[in-house]
Amino acid sequence: MTQLSLGATIGILGDGQLGRMLAQAASRLGFKVCIFGPERYSPAGQVSFDQVVANFNDFDALTSFSQFCDVITFEWENIPVETLEYLIGLGANVTPNPKALSITQDRLSEKLFARSNSIQTAEFAKVESVGDLTLALKSLGYPSILKTRREGYDGKGQTWLKSEEDITEALNLIGNKPAILEAKASFIDEISVVAVRSYDGAIRVFPIGINYHKNGILDKTIAPAILSEEIIDSANDIAHKVLNGLDYVGVLAVELFVMQDRTLWLNEIAPRVHNSGHWTQDGCVCDQFEQHIRAIVGWPLGDVTAVVQVEMTNLLGDEILAYTKLASEPMTRLHFYGKDAPRVGRKMGHINRLIPINDQI
Amino acid sequence: MTQLSLGATIGILGDGQLGRMLAQAASRLGFKVCIFGPERYSPAGQVSFDQVVANFNDFDALTSFSQFCDVITFEWENIPVETLEYLIGLGANVTPNPKALSITQDRLSEKLFARSNSIQTAEFAKVESVGDLTLALKSLGYPSILKTRREGYDGKGQTWLKSEEDITEALNLIGNKPAILEAKASFIDEISVVAVRSYDGAIRVFPIGINYHKNGILDKTIAPAILSEEIIDSANDIAHKVLNGLDYVGVLAVELFVMQDRTLWLNEIAPRVHNSGHWTQDGCVCDQFEQHIRAIVGWPLGDVTAVVQVEMTNLLGDEILAYTKLASEPMTRLHFYGKDAPRVGRKMGHINRLIPINDQI
Repeated sequence: MTQLSLGATIGILGDGQLGRMLAQAASRLGFKVCIFGPERYSPAGQVSFDQVVANFNDFDALTSFSQFCDVITFEWENIPVETLEYLIGLGANVTPNPKALSITQDRLSEKLFARSNSIQTAEFAKVESVGDLTLALKSLGYPSILKTRREGYDGKGQTWLKSEEDITEALNLIGNKPAILEAKASFIDEISVVAVRSYDGAIRVFPIGINYHKNGILDKTIAPAILSEEIIDSANDIAHKVLNGLDYVGVLAVELFVMQDRTLWLNEIAPRVHNSGHWTQDGCVCDQFEQHIRAIVGWPLGDVTAVVQVEMTNLLGDEILAYTKLASEPMTRLHFYGKDAPRVGRKMGHINRLIPINDQI
Repeated sequence: MTQLSLGATIGILGDGQLGRMLAQAASRLGFKVCIFGPERYSPAGQVSFDQVVANFNDFDALTSFSQFCDVITFEWENIPVETLEYLIGLGANVTPNPKALSITQDRLSEKLFARSNSIQTAEFAKVESVGDLTLALKSLGYPSILKTRREGYDGKGQTWLKSEEDITEALNLIGNKPAILEAKASFIDEISVVAVRSYDGAIRVFPIGINYHKNGILDKTIAPAILSEEIIDSANDIAHKVLNGLDYVGVLAVELFVMQDRTLWLNEIAPRVHNSGHWTQDGCVCDQFEQHIRAIVGWPLGDVTAVVQVEMTNLLGDEILAYTKLASEPMTRLHFYGKDAPRVGRKMGHINRLIPINDQI
């Protein structure tokens, strides 16, 4: 991969808010953006040079899309691997590589990848039947959490087991899909490391954020978080292992549990820009979206220095309707996603509250 | 004018980099943007929901444009006033009002406006003939500068007179258009005040920047500039007079000369977002582009607090071709305009170098 020239076209698979913010960053760098996704007038399409409105298995549409684009990336981890492989077969430059996607799309292979790279995780077991689950619970104990291996996010596709009585119901709740059982991780904090790797293997790690959830969905990230040097070093080390282990190019996020003994356990890897990195838009010299674009076009990586501390808060569902109140708050930057319908739990926007470094929390 | 709702459509007359950055800011607030301008694949059109490709005197195109838009603004001070009046005749909400445009499009009426609002300017005289010019030079002396009354910018449409011999040539150089002669202003600094006014008359003034020119074109702005309280107060007072005097809604920029006796003289008024306000994108909580959008949609004005000091540098012509070098500079944010042809002197982008408040210059 050589450097793309100013004015080249970047293709993005996925048309949601992450694609939107990637497109906004790409346009600041002078690139044109073409979005591929199912929704007409999508969040990403609204701000992009061009859009192909089609499903990810529409191979004719993918063929014409590939002809527009000098590099193709994705904003969503559930893009089918076959879609990426089809594009690669056409000669397209697809970055990051499909391996990262296929490993992280499956919670079991993600955990095995972590273990094989000396990254700690909660105890886990593969579950394909009631028998598997009963056996797994004997070894992991209660409470444990049952998660589908694929397509879970924001707390979907997972359920807690508190006693033997929950076994049959739990499998029903997750739709009897291939799953893994995870022992409860008694963590004291959840932190996110957002990091980037270039084609030549250079790595930059953003300052670490601390995450707060509500109903299984990220509510707030505060970053840079005040953490011990030991935790920061250990988180950076894990980010390096993940990026190198996946031979990854672009931005990814690693969610980590900080355990009572200060060790870090992998929660999950998101092979894309991530909600817990939205604070970088107003906190860092170069944000996660621009950083991803720089990496995939072969430009120098950006400066990850934080210039202020940020408290990022998600706006879910009708929380966005308070927009004029939000707009009147001091020290607050608004990022709204251009979505029409504020359905319950839907991510409609976020705000970044800036905290001068001297006042940091 | 009531508040526009989230998701409303903002029309922008003009398709250059100012329209582009207005569109980027509007999309962060969740608005859709429709650009009106002559160029297909224009800087602004590339990042906007929709674009009408037409000339400003294409009244059919203006009619259909007005039907898309909940409010219409402009990014260029030379939009014909008739264009705005035609749109208003159709019932469109056009903000700022055409009066601001018609006064500032004519250097003579701009100067008269300043004087009638107790704002100091260089001495000046109306010039429509060699006779006028000879007479004016007797009163203003040499050197003086002859400027066309209309359509001059970035040093175009103006020429210096150093002696009597220059008289005939000077009128030829500016194309024998209606002009004004201005006495030389022996200023020690040129500063810019960028400010915003809402429909209900609320005003916010950004921290002041100091400007450095090369060949008549803005080269750098450093802001917030270190200035005496007296100068800051006086500049703020002028900004208030201009905004109120024009009954202006939106962002405008006032360029001022700081004279040796510390008085401020008006250089010119730009009835739009301005190059000398680009530093706010990375220096302030709410930048000039978002601020303009907030004002014209009737949302609360944004926070003008500066969180870092910024040195903004324009990239003219082929300076943009050093983009990978620029991308590797620390503490630097890139803003490229998506223009294809780096013609000499053409504004292709700018960079904002961030200076932590403790290191400010």
